[in-house]
Amino acid sequence: MKVKGRNMRTIWVGEDGWSVEIIDQTALPHELIIASLENVHQAATAIKDMLVRGAPLIGVTGAYGMALAMRENASDENISAAYEILYKTRPTAVNLRWALDDMVGLLSQTPVEKREAVAYKRAGELADEDAKICETIGDYGLEIIRKIWQENGCPKVFNILTHCNAGWLATVDWGTALAPVYKAFNEGIPLHVWVDETRPRSQGASLTAWELSEHGVPHSLIVDNCGGHLMQHGMVDMCIVGTDRTSSNGDVCNKIGTYLKALAAHDNNVPFYVALPSPTIDWTIADGVKEVPIEERAEEEVTWVKGRAKDGSIQEVRICPERTKAANYGFDVTPAKYVTGLITEAGVCEASKQGLVNLFVKKRA
Amino acid sequence: MKVKGRNMRTIWVGEDGWSVEIIDQTALPHELIIASLENVHQAATAIKDMLVRGAPLIGVTGAYGMALAMRENASDENISAAYEILYKTRPTAVNLRWALDDMVGLLSQTPVEKREAVAYKRAGELADEDAKICETIGDYGLEIIRKIWQENGCPKVFNILTHCNAGWLATVDWGTALAPVYKAFNEGIPLHVWVDETRPRSQGASLTAWELSEHGVPHSLIVDNCGGHLMQHGMVDMCIVGTDRTSSNGDVCNKIGTYLKALAAHDNNVPFYVALPSPTIDWTIADGVKEVPIEERAEEEVTWVKGRAKDGSIQEVRICPERTKAANYGFDVTPAKYVTGLITEAGVCEASKQGLVNLFVKKRA
Repeated sequence: MKVKGRNMRTIWVGEDGWSVEIIDQTALPHELIIASLENVHQAATAIKDMLVRGAPLIGVTGAYGMALAMRENASDENISAAYEILYKTRPTAVNLRWALDDMVGLLSQTPVEKREAVAYKRAGELADEDAKICETIGDYGLEIIRKIWQENGCPKVFNILTHCNAGWLATVDWGTALAPVYKAFNEGIPLHVWVDETRPRSQGASLTAWELSEHGVPHSLIVDNCGGHLMQHGMVDMCIVGTDRTSSNGDVCNKIGTYLKALAAHDNNVPFYVALPSPTIDWTIADGVKEVPIEERAEEEVTWVKGRAKDGSIQEVRICPERTKAANYGFDVTPAKYVTGLITEAGVCEASKQGLVNLFVKKRA
Repeated sequence: MKVKGRNMRTIWVGEDGWSVEIIDQTALPHELIIASLENVHQAATAIKDMLVRGAPLIGVTGAYGMALAMRENASDENISAAYEILYKTRPTAVNLRWALDDMVGLLSQTPVEKREAVAYKRAGELADEDAKICETIGDYGLEIIRKIWQENGCPKVFNILTHCNAGWLATVDWGTALAPVYKAFNEGIPLHVWVDETRPRSQGASLTAWELSEHGVPHSLIVDNCGGHLMQHGMVDMCIVGTDRTSSNGDVCNKIGTYLKALAAHDNNVPFYVALPSPTIDWTIADGVKEVPIEERAEEEVTWVKGRAKDGSIQEVRICPERTKAANYGFDVTPAKYVTGLITEAGVCEASKQGLVNLFVKKRA
């Protein structure tokens, strides 16, 4: 997507042909810093310290980390060592494990002298595949946006609400929930996006607002409390969010607060769509509310807020009394009955066991 | 309620017998600063700059402002002048107008030489009356808490969720939504309060958390996104919030985000109560969602967050890109059907036209 007027991805190979460049997302939205990764340790640090985040992007960064390792030493021992270094950065990230397994499988079958070239090529393919999946989600989502826009009488402002950041910064390009938004904007549908701040980490305020701002998509930042009021008053035409994990019955685990917006959408007949690459479907889980474990994160994310002070410095400020403790649940689960539809790279389906089976199992059978 | 172990109100007459002391709420939760108001202009500034906030407290501060004015000059001209100075600070605050009208009515019938004494006496009565109303709300609310606690099998931790600050800091003492909490805590019911941060102004994090912390009530700060997840998982036994305005059919206008919590409570069979002094009932409005105008406030409240930096200084930090605009709706309306009951100083009733009429009209008839 566009940054300062030119197209950009979140990760790419530098002009030297081997160093791996990324956007340092910890500096956003206040500064655009390009970090150069020159060895496997730097790639690992980029993942661990969240310079890159978002499941697909973490996976691709892991793959490029393997390529950097092969450049230094393409031995079998170093394949194993690099895997360990990269894997332990975010051991619960399914995409990371998947990408690393893919790389190891390929490299172990490749003669040592060709491993560097093969690794770079495969990492590039993984990046392209991710971008393609997201673009396809965008195409399917565009059809839905166009349909609802037309059904609503082609209003001069078509309002979409989103929560957290499921944009291109979480992937290689396009994003998931925001891919349809970019497609519709590029096609000339007059969009305006309500951007949920998304406390505690404020990914909406910092990342989604930055993405939309750079690409030129009209948007307004709102606090997480606001969406219900907007929906009550006809100021939201549809919601689109991403998901970290979708259960086989269509329950959607996503950033904390998603469930509250889905309830408000349901109460006001606002279509509520979830965009996802199919690997985030967890076929082993039937009841998302009961079975998905919800991560509890550090309370400092709640009690402290980071931003840019008036003197330009980046500061953190404490917003509550010293003695007050906080609880910090990272995600919640929106029951399938509140989800209008799932937008995937294979098409759109109802958020239900039947819908998912029809799209992914029967089609393939 | 308790502060540093001793009982305190939000406003009182100083040891000199005439200066009016208040808690400067703009310095909370990081510092407890007592401001001394020595003339009508200082009282006006305290209201305008929100050193005091909350409808009942603003009214009482206005009344004491009249008393300070009478001390300086008890002439008819000065009654009018003081009224003007105080009224224009918050012209939309109904309680302020009501308190000032009450004072003027009384003072204009009082001989000049007695006006100072009469004004102090009446301001003190208004303060006591407000504290009494809130304490009575607390008594009625306590019965509900005790009942639900017992129905739930007297759990060792009884979890109450509240939004924004409807505590004693918004009144003279006790508060509205928090009055039942203090009563139940004082009686020994093992409470734990989930405190919604309440963006954008974060009154939950700064004021509710401070109040509860000082009084010793166990509590945890949570982001506004969190409550739905907690309710889904049985971690909230009941919700209690305040209200700025209640329509004659029981719709409740309160701080933005209240509606989302009511939806989640409804979805999970969690009792959702609203505590209010009866003057906040607006009998002229039937449909709260359609008829209550919602204030749009400055976007800087959304884009900047205030707190204490690591060096101890109070700082504001910007959380989004420079170009990003924000929308800032101050309140939302929760339809009566999502409200389990209204707790007032006259008793508890259903959130409906019939419920309110039975409690306030038929009883008086």
